[in-house]
Amino acid sequence: MAKEITARSADYAQWYNDLVLKGSLADYSAVRGCMVIKPYGFSIWERMRDILDREFKRTGHQNAAFPLFIPKSFLAKEAQHVEGFAKECAVVTHYRLKSDGEGGLIVDPEAKLEEELIVRPTSETIIWSTYKDWIQSYRDLPILVNQWANVVRWEMRTRLFLRTTEFFWQEGHTAHATEQEALEEARMILDLYADFMENVMAVPVIKGVKTASERFAGAVDTYTCEAMMQDAKALQMGTSHFLGQNFAKAFDVKFLSEEGQLEYVWATSWGVSTRLMGALVMTHSDDDGLIIPPKLAPIQVVIVPVYKKIEELQTINEAVDGIKASLEAEGITVKYDDNDHQRPGWKFAEYELKGIPVRVVLGPRDLQSSTAEVARRDTREKTSVSIGALSAHIKTLLDDIQQNLYNRALKFREDNTHRVDDFDSFQKLAEGDGGFIWAHWDGTPESEDVIKQKTKASIRCIPLNGERESGKCIVSGKPSERRVLLAKSY
Amino acid sequence: MAKEITARSADYAQWYNDLVLKGSLADYSAVRGCMVIKPYGFSIWERMRDILDREFKRTGHQNAAFPLFIPKSFLAKEAQHVEGFAKECAVVTHYRLKSDGEGGLIVDPEAKLEEELIVRPTSETIIWSTYKDWIQSYRDLPILVNQWANVVRWEMRTRLFLRTTEFFWQEGHTAHATEQEALEEARMILDLYADFMENVMAVPVIKGVKTASERFAGAVDTYTCEAMMQDAKALQMGTSHFLGQNFAKAFDVKFLSEEGQLEYVWATSWGVSTRLMGALVMTHSDDDGLIIPPKLAPIQVVIVPVYKKIEELQTINEAVDGIKASLEAEGITVKYDDNDHQRPGWKFAEYELKGIPVRVVLGPRDLQSSTAEVARRDTREKTSVSIGALSAHIKTLLDDIQQNLYNRALKFREDNTHRVDDFDSFQKLAEGDGGFIWAHWDGTPESEDVIKQKTKASIRCIPLNGERESGKCIVSGKPSERRVLLAKSY
Repeated sequence: MAKEITARSADYAQWYNDLVLKGSLADYSAVRGCMVIKPYGFSIWERMRDILDREFKRTGHQNAAFPLFIPKSFLAKEAQHVEGFAKECAVVTHYRLKSDGEGGLIVDPEAKLEEELIVRPTSETIIWSTYKDWIQSYRDLPILVNQWANVVRWEMRTRLFLRTTEFFWQEGHTAHATEQEALEEARMILDLYADFMENVMAVPVIKGVKTASERFAGAVDTYTCEAMMQDAKALQMGTSHFLGQNFAKAFDVKFLSEEGQLEYVWATSWGVSTRLMGALVMTHSDDDGLIIPPKLAPIQVVIVPVYKKIEELQTINEAVDGIKASLEAEGITVKYDDNDHQRPGWKFAEYELKGIPVRVVLGPRDLQSSTAEVARRDTREKTSVSIGALSAHIKTLLDDIQQNLYNRALKFREDNTHRVDDFDSFQKLAEGDGGFIWAHWDGTPESEDVIKQKTKASIRCIPLNGERESGKCIVSGKPSERRVLLAKSY
Repeated sequence: MAKEITARSADYAQWYNDLVLKGSLADYSAVRGCMVIKPYGFSIWERMRDILDREFKRTGHQNAAFPLFIPKSFLAKEAQHVEGFAKECAVVTHYRLKSDGEGGLIVDPEAKLEEELIVRPTSETIIWSTYKDWIQSYRDLPILVNQWANVVRWEMRTRLFLRTTEFFWQEGHTAHATEQEALEEARMILDLYADFMENVMAVPVIKGVKTASERFAGAVDTYTCEAMMQDAKALQMGTSHFLGQNFAKAFDVKFLSEEGQLEYVWATSWGVSTRLMGALVMTHSDDDGLIIPPKLAPIQVVIVPVYKKIEELQTINEAVDGIKASLEAEGITVKYDDNDHQRPGWKFAEYELKGIPVRVVLGPRDLQSSTAEVARRDTREKTSVSIGALSAHIKTLLDDIQQNLYNRALKFREDNTHRVDDFDSFQKLAEGDGGFIWAHWDGTPESEDVIKQKTKASIRCIPLNGERESGKCIVSGKPSERRVLLAKSY
């Protein structure tokens, strides 16, 4: 029978872990805080990566690769940057092991590095030290480079996909001649991310800018996409940073402008990571397992034969050949599971657990009536569809599932969104049901601190598209011009 | 004018470095022995990766991701494995930095790891420690997994792409129920590699098996593809290992067989790396720059306009629109360089340096006669082609260039291949012109040692397809049944 999944309502955190582990997305590894991404999980991540990569290239970016290691002194060059990352750095100090003479293995004390190397937690410093050699004049700009890489941040409390010591991501690092161009790049990427999250992952997001205290270490402005998970907490899905000239100054990267002036270069950096896998799981899944949106599902349709005698299977096989071909002709990925070791019921549960969007069941009686049973994973609805109409039906159905998942997530978010105008109501909500809370804030770090200290919520972002509205800060009572988004978060 | 490339005949090593650096493939980085792969170089590597990845998937493999770090004790579990890698390990000993109180940054002595972590030099140990959890019965087998990853080996002497501290590769790690199946997998992958090298990279290779002393640390047998570079030295292009039950025993990975027996699992591992980029450069390029085979060229055709007046450029632009569209309709990647800042001569040199297979030049006189000048990079031959026939002509031309590069490399190898039957002749060749030398060897490590100590050559492989031929070992005079491949190597 199906692997047991803890009910979401009983233990949300355990429900999530069950989905990741039993849904074959990832495993714990022997190395503290590091995960193994299993083939099924990796194939979903590959789809995300390929779609994003295509978008980056369409918007003029190219991939490159920079070193895994960063000299310790580089990290120290940008004051806020080092402040943000020094406490979670994996440090390479030696480059050789040797025998201890008793069958064991020790670090060779004679192979100590003169300068320690940090395993990159992010690559601004090593990349800007490189850009110094690449940039002389305005003709060398812009540089629009991205890398797909692994990074390491020594986290104390880790959770599969959401916060791991090693994780996988892409990091874009661009260099520009003007402030305006860099700002436009940072915002264009934010829009690109939001489009991907909403239209591919079916996860609605709110775009905004972070407060000073939540900014990336070294950024002038951090733009963010925030989504609501099924426990009504916020998850930061991806960020795009306008870095100003901070890293250009730290690494002395100047260019000769068209007007013949020597100026510092303007920069952005931006990234999304395997954390998106966690967001995908937590936005759509239910107590029966994962639900993967059709645009990311490595298998969109699974066909399961139901039969008693082996001759019946042969007849089904013949029908499936045609069905599979017509689905594949529509660009739909299909798996036919004719494995004889497992019973149909076991298979149904297994593919529900894995979140395959559509299941087609074929038995001898279906064949007699030239129909097949089509079940959609999101609503569990079953329909009998004539075999001739199957591929057209499923093509529409996949679009419908994609849209329904988005709508469902949006409705959940709306049902759990509140507007409050006083601190007591805010605190009650933040301590209680949670959700997204829109409230007025006076823009000061002092009021923000009060919120953080008195509740477990924080300002997730100042919305980019927020309508102007006069109001009073829920902490200080001072005037405010727009509401900000508050929530508990991952 | 063009960036100066050192002549290959004057200084082979410098010629190679010039090509890599000035051809925009890679750069040195601030971290000793680590390289930066620049966008142009990376786009070629991406093509290699995508083609190989498709082949791995076609043959049933799936991608996954395993941790970057390996606990020190894991490395020690397979005796030969640790022997092979202990001396070149980057070791993480701490997980935090802190301020030294004087504006500097030091490793926090209180954040010392209980067990040091090795940055993976290869992943057999961490993967087999994971497979232990994945494998219980024969039904869990085979496992056919690959990962695209960065690995670190602390090399003392490094060269861009050929031998770097950090490099990028794919490593396949498969688990099987029977010895026969694992052996077949290792050999199937060797064939897949050789096909890719010959048909995509246009690099002819010799397939063989390594001698015991040249085996991968922990393998029962190492299969290899060996190619000849333009200095007549051998380069090991990729290896596929039959690991027997060595890692299954080291990590106690057993399975219940169909007959109900508990048995150790059989294994393979196999990899190719960014070293292939070095091979590509060293096989085809000349003193004017890189020559990229059409199947790997990110830009296959560059179109350069030649004009004096701006009205002429407008007429050319209109013609190019149609030409570009008809080439792209054939699946050909085209760049139109209408940049007005650079003169045509500069562009010609630049695209020759970058190795773009075909250049099309269009000027007002060409347009009058409805022709274009087509130049191929490999032979530098120019032809005038009618615009109507251009896309068909170039399609054939690209195939022809691909084949010609292979043929040329094969001819070079044949011209530099020798058969010798006595040690003196062998030594004279190995010390002199080099090349591939086929000679008889008695199969003993003692004779192999003599070769290594008296010359700079070594046994590259025992050929898989070598015809049987009775002869006498050039060292010992003892009988031998087939010739082996000897050469100086990278």
